[in-house]
Amino acid sequence: MKIRPLGDRVVIKMMEAEEKTKSGIVLPGSAKESPQMAEVIEVGPGGMVEGKEVKMEIKTGDKVIFSKYAGTEVKLDGQEYTILKQSDILAVVE
Amino acid sequence: MKIRPLGDRVVIKMMEAEEKTKSGIVLPGSAKESPQMAEVIEVGPGGMVEGKEVKMEIKTGDKVIFSKYAGTEVKLDGQEYTILKQSDILAVVE
Amino acid sequence: MKIRPLGDRVVIKMMEAEEKTKSGIVLPGSAKESPQMAEVIEVGPGGMVEGKEVKMEIKTGDKVIFSKYAGTEVKLDGQEYTILKQSDILAVVE
Amino acid sequence: MKIRPLGDRVVIKMMEAEEKTKSGIVLPGSAKESPQMAEVIEVGPGGMVEGKEVKMEIKTGDKVIFSKYAGTEVKLDGQEYTILKQSDILAVVE
Amino acid sequence: MKIRPLGDRVVIKMMEAEEKTKSGIVLPGSAKESPQMAEVIEVGPGGMVEGKEVKMEIKTGDKVIFSKYAGTEVKLDGQEYTILKQSDILAVVE
Amino acid sequence: MKIRPLGDRVVIKMMEAEEKTKSGIVLPGSAKESPQMAEVIEVGPGGMVEGKEVKMEIKTGDKVIFSKYAGTEVKLDGQEYTILKQSDILAVVE
Amino acid sequence: MKIRPLGDRVVIKMMEAEEKTKSGIVLPGSAKESPQMAEVIEVGPGGMVEGKEVKMEIKTGDKVIFSKYAGTEVKLDGQEYTILKQSDILAVVE
Repeated sequence: MKIRPLGDRVVIKMMEAEEKTKSGIVLPGSAKESPQMAEVIEVGPGGMVEGKEVKMEIKTGDKVIFSKYAGTEVKLDGQEYTILKQSDILAVVE
Repeated sequence: MKIRPLGDRVVIKMMEAEEKTKSGIVLPGSAKESPQMAEVIEVGPGGMVEGKEVKMEIKTGDKVIFSKYAGTEVKLDGQEYTILKQSDILAVVE
Repeated sequence: MKIRPLGDRVVIKMMEAEEKTKSGIVLPGSAKESPQMAEVIEVGPGGMVEGKEVKMEIKTGDKVIFSKYAGTEVKLDGQEYTILKQSDILAVVE
Repeated sequence: MKIRPLGDRVVIKMMEAEEKTKSGIVLPGSAKESPQMAEVIEVGPGGMVEGKEVKMEIKTGDKVIFSKYAGTEVKLDGQEYTILKQSDILAVVE
Repeated sequence: MKIRPLGDRVVIKMMEAEEKTKSGIVLPGSAKESPQMAEVIEVGPGGMVEGKEVKMEIKTGDKVIFSKYAGTEVKLDGQEYTILKQSDILAVVE
Repeated sequence: MKIRPLGDRVVIKMMEAEEKTKSGIVLPGSAKESPQMAEVIEVGPGGMVEGKEVKMEIKTGDKVIFSKYAGTEVKLDGQEYTILKQSDILAVVE
Repeated sequence: MKIRPLGDRVVIKMMEAEEKTKSGIVLPGSAKESPQMAEVIEVGPGGMVEGKEVKMEIKTGDKVIFSKYAGTEVKLDGQEYTILKQSDILAVVE
């Protein structure tokens, strides 16, 4: 089963503290201090969105920082995801 | 009798917990935890909507995830439907 | 006497419960549960509305579902009407 | 003395209950139940208004229904007028 | 000394009750009942304002009716003026 | 050291009461009654700002009247400045 | 590890009081009086952002003044950064 986001939306999955550390980020305190990092699971096709051409800059597997409270949380197969617009993604961590 | 939505609107029907499970989604707790999944019943023609060209990406029969609180609920022939704009549909579940 | 709506507006008249039933809609409870259905009485010419081209998709006699609280109620010749914009009409019931 | 409205504005004068009745409208209760009908006194030239081309559809002498609370009331020569935008006029009564 | 308004702004000066009467307006009660009439002192050049072309329709010396609470009051040489946008001027009194 | 404002922003410095008087403005009461006059210190380049072409009409040294509460106050070298958009400047005093 | 901001966003790092003084700014009181100065760490590519072409005027290493409360704070490798849109940067200090 697969979530296919529409328009300029992307599906992301919150990263666990240990995953974040593995990717090189030092989290001296609690993981709760940095809850805005996630991995991109699915990317919408972009195109005309509310009358404006949107090109997707994000790709599956990107580690991203996103706006707190942005998007809608959904639960599929016991796993929680967030669906948000690409414009709510602030940056990619490389 | 048939509901024909206008412009970029679609008519959806909430899916029952058992239906969702049949389509492969595991719902370990209560169906109330995932109330945003629905089936598309009718799709508007799209076209110029508030001065912007909208192309319909959704088709009848799609299983969709939509924004909580989006749309208007209507009751016809004892059945409840929700009419919302395509832009309130976040993703298609395949 | 006739109400001629301007721009993208339409004049509608709420349907009585019996009328609704005649058109095939089963209303098991009270008519108050479904107050959003109405018949279209007059349709504006459309055209440029607030700088956007609007084409009227609705025609006189259509049975429509509209957004709760949309429009302005007026009383003429002892009859109540609602004047609203076509974009507040969600769907046509056929 | 004359009020010349700017842009897409029109000057209207509330109609008295007796005037309304003369034009064929039955007002079984109080005139206060239908305070939104008025006669158009002056019409602005239209043209570019906030970057959008507006064509005036209303003419002096029209009987119109307008949005409650729309416009600004002014008093000239002991007479009260309301100045509002054409888009706040819902319909013409013919 | 001179105030030169920018863009689509105009400088106006409130008219005294006696001035208003001289120009033919009957004010049976208090001048406070009609505080929205003013004389235009300076007119901005118009042109591109927030991405929209604005043509000035108002000229120095015009008697105008303006939106209550619109604009900013300034005091120069002991005289109070209001600076507002042309779009806050409702009508010219001729 | 120099503040270089971006886009359609300008840097202004509040004028002291004595400076204002020298430039010919009579301030019979307190300077606090007229806190909106300032001198322009730096002017941004203008150009495309939020998708709209902005041409700077203000130049360094202009005495300007600006919207109360507009802009952001900053302190550099012990001196207070305000950075605001040109559209928050109402008029130039000449 | 590197933060790559999307669209018209930039990553900035707050400047310490001593750093600000070194760059020539006199801070007679507390650094807390001037918390809006920061150094630019990374700059997004600009381009089409919400349907508008944005050209980046800011470059890495610029000392900038930004709108209070603008942007989102993130913590990476024990260091705090703020990610904001270029339009929330008011000026460059040179």
